[in-house]
Amino acid sequence: MRGKFITFEGCEGSGKSTQLKLLSEYLKSAGVDFITSREPGGSEISEDIRRIILNGKYTSMCDECEALLYAASRVQHIKEVIEPALAAGKLVVCDRFVDSSFAYQGYARGLGEQFIKNINAFALEKYTPDLTVFLDIVPKDAFARKHGADDSDRMEKQGLAFHQKVYEGYKQLQKYPRFCPVDCSGDKWQTAENIKNLLKSRNIIK
Amino acid sequence: MRGKFITFEGCEGSGKSTQLKLLSEYLKSAGVDFITSREPGGSEISEDIRRIILNGKYTSMCDECEALLYAASRVQHIKEVIEPALAAGKLVVCDRFVDSSFAYQGYARGLGEQFIKNINAFALEKYTPDLTVFLDIVPKDAFARKHGADDSDRMEKQGLAFHQKVYEGYKQLQKYPRFCPVDCSGDKWQTAENIKNLLKSRNIIK
Repeated sequence: MRGKFITFEGCEGSGKSTQLKLLSEYLKSAGVDFITSREPGGSEISEDIRRIILNGKYTSMCDECEALLYAASRVQHIKEVIEPALAAGKLVVCDRFVDSSFAYQGYARGLGEQFIKNINAFALEKYTPDLTVFLDIVPKDAFARKHGADDSDRMEKQGLAFHQKVYEGYKQLQKYPRFCPVDCSGDKWQTAENIKNLLKSRNIIK
Repeated sequence: MRGKFITFEGCEGSGKSTQLKLLSEYLKSAGVDFITSREPGGSEISEDIRRIILNGKYTSMCDECEALLYAASRVQHIKEVIEPALAAGKLVVCDRFVDSSFAYQGYARGLGEQFIKNINAFALEKYTPDLTVFLDIVPKDAFARKHGADDSDRMEKQGLAFHQKVYEGYKQLQKYPRFCPVDCSGDKWQTAENIKNLLKSRNIIK
């Protein structure tokens, strides 16, 4: 039987990495056959593309180039990592996917939904996630956790106004039943519990 | 007055580099205000993308990823190099452009014309070349000139059957009046003369 595909989305500093780690530990302890991966990246070629996308010195990169690089990285990642794992019946947990392109490039950069759909047709036709976990935390709070770090990349370096638009972009995606905001107002253990309950209610795990 | 935009197309080993060099020398001697550039590449970010596309060790790169990387490189090249030069009234001479994507990825790789149109919408809407010089030489001959070189890149390493399909793909583009095959059956000086005459007949140069 083909595996299920779930994605994590959220603004910079929303705690995605922490929650992905906690969920991985839980899935491991529960004996679930799963893999985790991330975007952009996840395969050798895709990680090489990631290096260009996030390079802090590439300040002249235009929005269309950025969106196309994400799409290129994504399709390679699907073919080399996601598809083989799903075909092997594994649960695939991915840190960011097409929804990031809708929120960041489509909405916050202003390229529009149709542009993102056109360049991601391959992913959208066959790889709609079974569930998307959206860590619903406003960027004012999220941003404070991360901004100012010396090693911040090209996307993290964007100002607060940009990240607030990203958040608005994500909110538009709530029209899809698979796109589920998770309450992050409690501590990280409470959020992890909320995510686990969501996965159970959607029959992703037992 | 806005400058004109011409592109050179042809299979591997068709003599594009030689002809671009000869044309550049002529334009210089004639006092034409022009720039030459190339795809993929032409700007710092685009050259970095080129390095991934042509990397000989990336044998697992899927066709869609390849096409999206070309499109990403192209749009950045347009914004950083082509548009400023055209706006400054210069003649822009570019080694390869969207037609390469139609012939290589759309036709020879089998992704189809619509896929290439979708991901190159930005280039196609505003940057249709005023003239495309197609060096019309069948890959059997062209290929012999280049294949087997130790430093051949990922595209050059494709077999003859692939390059023959690329040639067929190019032939489909003759439906566009701007796409002009140039007879290459003579020596390089004769071909250069043919190109110069073509540019004159299309009012690109006097």
